[in-house]
Amino acid sequence: MRVIDLNCDMGESFGRYSLGFDEEIMDYVTSANIACGFHAGDPSVMDATVAMAGKRGLGIGAHPSYPDLQGFGRRSMAMSAKELRASLIYQIGALKGFTDFYGYRLQHVKLHGALYNMACADSVLAKTVAESVAVMDRNLIFVALYGSELYRAGIDMGLKVAGEFFADRHYGADGKLLPRTHADALVTGDQAVLDRCLLAVKEGKVEAVDGTVLAVEVDTICLHGDNPAALRLARLIRQDLEKHGLEVRPLASFL
Amino acid sequence: MRVIDLNCDMGESFGRYSLGFDEEIMDYVTSANIACGFHAGDPSVMDATVAMAGKRGLGIGAHPSYPDLQGFGRRSMAMSAKELRASLIYQIGALKGFTDFYGYRLQHVKLHGALYNMACADSVLAKTVAESVAVMDRNLIFVALYGSELYRAGIDMGLKVAGEFFADRHYGADGKLLPRTHADALVTGDQAVLDRCLLAVKEGKVEAVDGTVLAVEVDTICLHGDNPAALRLARLIRQDLEKHGLEVRPLASFL
Amino acid sequence: MRVIDLNCDMGESFGRYSLGFDEEIMDYVTSANIACGFHAGDPSVMDATVAMAGKRGLGIGAHPSYPDLQGFGRRSMAMSAKELRASLIYQIGALKGFTDFYGYRLQHVKLHGALYNMACADSVLAKTVAESVAVMDRNLIFVALYGSELYRAGIDMGLKVAGEFFADRHYGADGKLLPRTHADALVTGDQAVLDRCLLAVKEGKVEAVDGTVLAVEVDTICLHGDNPAALRLARLIRQDLEKHGLEVRPLASFL
Amino acid sequence: MRVIDLNCDMGESFGRYSLGFDEEIMDYVTSANIACGFHAGDPSVMDATVAMAGKRGLGIGAHPSYPDLQGFGRRSMAMSAKELRASLIYQIGALKGFTDFYGYRLQHVKLHGALYNMACADSVLAKTVAESVAVMDRNLIFVALYGSELYRAGIDMGLKVAGEFFADRHYGADGKLLPRTHADALVTGDQAVLDRCLLAVKEGKVEAVDGTVLAVEVDTICLHGDNPAALRLARLIRQDLEKHGLEVRPLASFL
Repeated sequence: MRVIDLNCDMGESFGRYSLGFDEEIMDYVTSANIACGFHAGDPSVMDATVAMAGKRGLGIGAHPSYPDLQGFGRRSMAMSAKELRASLIYQIGALKGFTDFYGYRLQHVKLHGALYNMACADSVLAKTVAESVAVMDRNLIFVALYGSELYRAGIDMGLKVAGEFFADRHYGADGKLLPRTHADALVTGDQAVLDRCLLAVKEGKVEAVDGTVLAVEVDTICLHGDNPAALRLARLIRQDLEKHGLEVRPLASFL
Repeated sequence: MRVIDLNCDMGESFGRYSLGFDEEIMDYVTSANIACGFHAGDPSVMDATVAMAGKRGLGIGAHPSYPDLQGFGRRSMAMSAKELRASLIYQIGALKGFTDFYGYRLQHVKLHGALYNMACADSVLAKTVAESVAVMDRNLIFVALYGSELYRAGIDMGLKVAGEFFADRHYGADGKLLPRTHADALVTGDQAVLDRCLLAVKEGKVEAVDGTVLAVEVDTICLHGDNPAALRLARLIRQDLEKHGLEVRPLASFL
Repeated sequence: MRVIDLNCDMGESFGRYSLGFDEEIMDYVTSANIACGFHAGDPSVMDATVAMAGKRGLGIGAHPSYPDLQGFGRRSMAMSAKELRASLIYQIGALKGFTDFYGYRLQHVKLHGALYNMACADSVLAKTVAESVAVMDRNLIFVALYGSELYRAGIDMGLKVAGEFFADRHYGADGKLLPRTHADALVTGDQAVLDRCLLAVKEGKVEAVDGTVLAVEVDTICLHGDNPAALRLARLIRQDLEKHGLEVRPLASFL
Repeated sequence: MRVIDLNCDMGESFGRYSLGFDEEIMDYVTSANIACGFHAGDPSVMDATVAMAGKRGLGIGAHPSYPDLQGFGRRSMAMSAKELRASLIYQIGALKGFTDFYGYRLQHVKLHGALYNMACADSVLAKTVAESVAVMDRNLIFVALYGSELYRAGIDMGLKVAGEFFADRHYGADGKLLPRTHADALVTGDQAVLDRCLLAVKEGKVEAVDGTVLAVEVDTICLHGDNPAALRLARLIRQDLEKHGLEVRPLASFL
């Protein structure tokens, strides 16, 4: 039977600021990408989020970013490879502090925002990221957009790489996500999203925006929990996958 | 033969700002308290400092602080026990990221600045700190002013506690350090400092500012490397201890 | 006819984080205390908030705080008088940048959170604050809890001081607010709040928690806009004051 | 008689970190570009630097940057025009807080680091900067590399623009500075630097790295005070300019 993981960004509150429906989305996803304080999250938020995710049996991942709280990690920054490596070690280590504290395992690493996007497109950046993770702990599962430079860099470093699929985003014929600013960036309609998930997971196919059919290998699907509509869609996706005979489990259980 | 450790705060540079003679002081001390980014240090500085300390065979420690870069962690802050715990886990974890990366062991934890001083005097705060460290990793050596609340809290939690001695600071008759603002806070004269070190390490005694003789158990002496005079004194202390038959080694080798 | 100002904290969003119903509360209040980036607010939020408040004709005020985004300025910090003064000048200047840009006047200064509370109780701190504001621009209206040390310090410096009244908070017999942690800190029941407002504004009286009747001189009442219930209460207070013949206007129009 | 201004970045210390020989360089320059807390400087440093510069009669300028203390403002960031504008208003306003406090005039604005370089090369960015300054206070003198996009944008907005010349940097034939990473980026030899200054100021010419002679209009020369060699060169430049009959005065006295 085919197995799939569902992941979601979490722990993106900060101090007095609350963001996302972390508790609710945990009913539907199996892996949590937890912010590490650079684009969102603070130590108290990380503490609470790791505790909650671990208690629910979710796979816990570090979700490092450029250091940019004001920009929520969505603004690209010119960091040297060495600065970036140190920044990743710092963030992953900080999150691992909490999994150590609670006795959970750190399952995976998934980059956030501008850093994710840039590392998916830039092979040099991608290599820096993959090396940093591999040297730090090569048992960490490396989540990356299937087919991207980041994905390839993870494979090249001998990491366990989880191919990620974006259910609600359109792909170009080159296998890259259309940028958010593109008019057709988002897939609209619940059924369309559900159909894309099944096609990707069961048949390894995704239809690009121009109709080209691309091959994908999907280990995890990225869901969202920052608004009620996203929550509802997450529930539908989970139910639909299970209805079609898929088992939804954390990455570490099958990678 | 009596063994002693010498420790020093390090990695307190930040970005463009350089502070301390880390490389030079490493010739004299055996344990490095490395800043974790909250009062000083940034990921790149931590990376370089852990690499350098590890290569020299120093015991590597996390040196967490209140979150206050502008105040260099010297301003007390009203944090709840839970906030403090999360903040410690975050910082210790971040530093451990670098020891993991380089394949070194994280040897100890020593608090910085206002947090150290407050935890030495406040039993509730001290307990929060000791619990946080113990739950995170009870093999971490817990460095605390001998006889302080922090020291007692570490013992109570069953941690390996290293009793710290301040060679260049005067003690009150109550065994506490005189505050830096006190006119007699600092011990002046190299010979006086050397004599105090030997008396403390070999005979377990320190003379308080009023002449009272206090009992101390010393595992590590705090030295400084932030100016040339401190560097010179560090060299003298190291030489004098060895001349008098003491072995100077990292904490983990004898605790 | 008696005139009164209603003030509310605003511009407390930050980056991706949204906080408060600023646009809605502007229908009911006449002065805006705008966060300056230290406990909340970022340059973009300040820009938008000053623009919106100015367009609506509200009196615009700087709302400086201790530098503590994670703690939302609610944690007291040990800052020297000189550090505090510099920090106030920085924040007030930054906000004035936006009133200059849009061609509005900076009407007032009101401290935030722990800094407000501490300066209300500590005459030395209060004097530092009042001096900083007076030297910077003595036309700035100085908002302070009526009867507090902060209020007195403003008067002593010859500033135009606006006596502030907290409609939903209980006072002790000493004229101080009960701390938020006190069981009776909050006044419950809309009617009770409305009655207290009228009594304070029209008769200059407030009943302390033990029944003592205290004299107050009220220029401005502090309202809240961070949740729907607070918004509703703000509307009720505004309507009730106007129904009883009071004119609600910004401080600068009558001080 | 030809008049010239000499400017230098200052106030770039932060908290415990000391950077630059501000007091010494003030003997040679006539305008101070004071960091505003985003790449360097904190409120206390700004306070002390404005006080010191004002007392010496220097022209005081705001030196805003991208928000990047760790990178010292040298890493380019993707900010929207609106974010950048707000960030400039904030920083300029904050510095003006201190000139208001001390009763000095804010003379000029000069961008820092990556922001300066990018705005010199990018007309859209340059326009955002010039508009922000012009709307905030069109009496502010706008310092920009002569002939750059930033220079042109200032002129287009009707600002008083000071053409800046870099004495120790080589220019390309296109009038742009060679990037710091270029092998020939720096002019070596004191006499060469002195000759370039005189040629630029008295004859309006600079020789590009390929020998091309470019026309320049120079109102201010950028000097440095962050190391002893720079200090010495600053002294030589000042003396040499005066020896050759030039008057060295703050920008506001002749623009």
